[in-house]
Amino acid sequence: MAQVRNKQVLLKNYVTGFPKESDMEIVEGSITLKVPEGSSDVVLLKNLYLSCDPYMRILMYKDTPLSLGFQYSPGSPLTAFGVSKVVESGDPKYKKDDLVWGVTKWEEYSLVPSAKIHLLFEHTGMPGMTAYGGFFELGCPKKGEKVFVSAASGAVGQLVGQFAKLTGCYVVGSAGSQEKVDILKNKLGFDEAFNYKEESNLDAALKRYFPEGIDIYFENVGGKTLDAVLLNMRSHGRIPVCGMISQYNLSQPEGVTNLANLIYKEIKMQGFIVSQFYPLYPKFLEFILPHIREGKIAYVEDIVEGLEGGPAALVSLFSGQNLGKKIVAIAPE
Amino acid sequence: MAQVRNKQVLLKNYVTGFPKESDMEIVEGSITLKVPEGSSDVVLLKNLYLSCDPYMRILMYKDTPLSLGFQYSPGSPLTAFGVSKVVESGDPKYKKDDLVWGVTKWEEYSLVPSAKIHLLFEHTGMPGMTAYGGFFELGCPKKGEKVFVSAASGAVGQLVGQFAKLTGCYVVGSAGSQEKVDILKNKLGFDEAFNYKEESNLDAALKRYFPEGIDIYFENVGGKTLDAVLLNMRSHGRIPVCGMISQYNLSQPEGVTNLANLIYKEIKMQGFIVSQFYPLYPKFLEFILPHIREGKIAYVEDIVEGLEGGPAALVSLFSGQNLGKKIVAIAPE
Repeated sequence: MAQVRNKQVLLKNYVTGFPKESDMEIVEGSITLKVPEGSSDVVLLKNLYLSCDPYMRILMYKDTPLSLGFQYSPGSPLTAFGVSKVVESGDPKYKKDDLVWGVTKWEEYSLVPSAKIHLLFEHTGMPGMTAYGGFFELGCPKKGEKVFVSAASGAVGQLVGQFAKLTGCYVVGSAGSQEKVDILKNKLGFDEAFNYKEESNLDAALKRYFPEGIDIYFENVGGKTLDAVLLNMRSHGRIPVCGMISQYNLSQPEGVTNLANLIYKEIKMQGFIVSQFYPLYPKFLEFILPHIREGKIAYVEDIVEGLEGGPAALVSLFSGQNLGKKIVAIAPE
Repeated sequence: MAQVRNKQVLLKNYVTGFPKESDMEIVEGSITLKVPEGSSDVVLLKNLYLSCDPYMRILMYKDTPLSLGFQYSPGSPLTAFGVSKVVESGDPKYKKDDLVWGVTKWEEYSLVPSAKIHLLFEHTGMPGMTAYGGFFELGCPKKGEKVFVSAASGAVGQLVGQFAKLTGCYVVGSAGSQEKVDILKNKLGFDEAFNYKEESNLDAALKRYFPEGIDIYFENVGGKTLDAVLLNMRSHGRIPVCGMISQYNLSQPEGVTNLANLIYKEIKMQGFIVSQFYPLYPKFLEFILPHIREGKIAYVEDIVEGLEGGPAALVSLFSGQNLGKKIVAIAPE
């Protein structure tokens, strides 16, 4: 029975403050390329691409407050979304060489529950569903509305901005470098974009871009940005809360002081995890596939080659050094 | 034409910090008891009861962030909800001696737009609609769910607690004195109640009363209480945001640090103003009237006699010295 090398990225310890590469370690294990006899609910995957996402930081807390159906523990490989090829399936729903996406592990080969994966259709996946569900289901956009997206060049933000434009909204994004701002305006079709690091007064910046206020704020960062946004929301505004990446590494999160505006402006602020939108997957495909075929959706990816580069790739999310969706490519298809 | 005395409570100046009686002044004006010729959209009211409500503090800010269709300005009488008797109506919808509730002014007689008032049916009004709309429409309670109400003995909180019990929920209230706690438990039917001033650790207090977490938090106070609640919400919890009375008088509001739990627990937090629920008024009456007739709704009122007592009554809301719904009775019916 084929026993092969299985390189893995393990969590070394629970993390306090900003994650460092040394919080993870790369080890060489081995794996038997066979689904255990009689296991009809697992698949053996060869992992092709691994996704780096901010929520992974939250799973690195001891006693994480996030329940996604999987947790991290020191000594085990990171669990995360990825694109994989089926090596062998116990579940008749999948067959050898199927391309799938779903919850897998940071290693070359993974044995995972078949309930956690889906067949891959074209360019879809977790950030797409996150942007779609958060923006359309919770943001309830209407043509002509004013939309602000933070971390706008990130995996989710870049899609939200494009979905907003497809809906006929005015959309402004914030990001952390001039290069990202240029991409937002020139490649991703945002009406305006600004570098939040260059703005000494975020409230004033928002008033400049939204003299009449914001209808939808797609929240990816939290903290000071949220506080400034709350001062600039319009009546009956919506704030889908996708992430608060500025806060995950702080032992004492920044205080948000302007929440009373939720009342004054009758604002709905709603946190979500992408899984609540999985039932909408067919509707999402119906929406997105024609746009993809017509070349109307751009997607900026930042791909690192090799599992060894995984820890650095993940850490880069929190210093803002990624440019677009961060992916670790670990095997040729 | 009858010209009579019209005592008024004027705002003297915009308010910083806690409101004081001296921020208001009582003056004696006069009024002609006649609707101006040809005015078919106004009514002349004799005010009977005036409602003291926390939102009035927000209207005392210079450049108030709250748009209710009326504002305060120094030298003018306070505008607020009240119960009044029609003296004369230009609008054929009302006739002399009708009892009405709606937006009137802190004075003996008021000429107001007829669009701002409603006929009075039994014991209904603004706090009832606020509790009803916030709890049922935004809280979406289900039998067996766990509900926490802050400022629970206040005008709105006491009704929310009773509506929660009528829905088959477990409900705990917080308030600022032992006397209020006793009323919550013994008169208003809350399952549990506690004095937040006696709790050095609100997180621990909430874990004691909600070992499995909170499904619905009816938010009246903001600040530290909200921060502790966010640590104790259950997955898919709801937070209708009715008020944040602990914050209105602070020049620098307290920072809320645990908002990332909105994501982890997929929480919907929604601010509201009662007027968005006015279309539900018939549905509200259908719900509440049978319960009132069967004696199933208790209501604790704290009534002050005379317009002169108005400023002190209003100020008492912010020191927690009121016990239940604070009302200024200014004329015998």
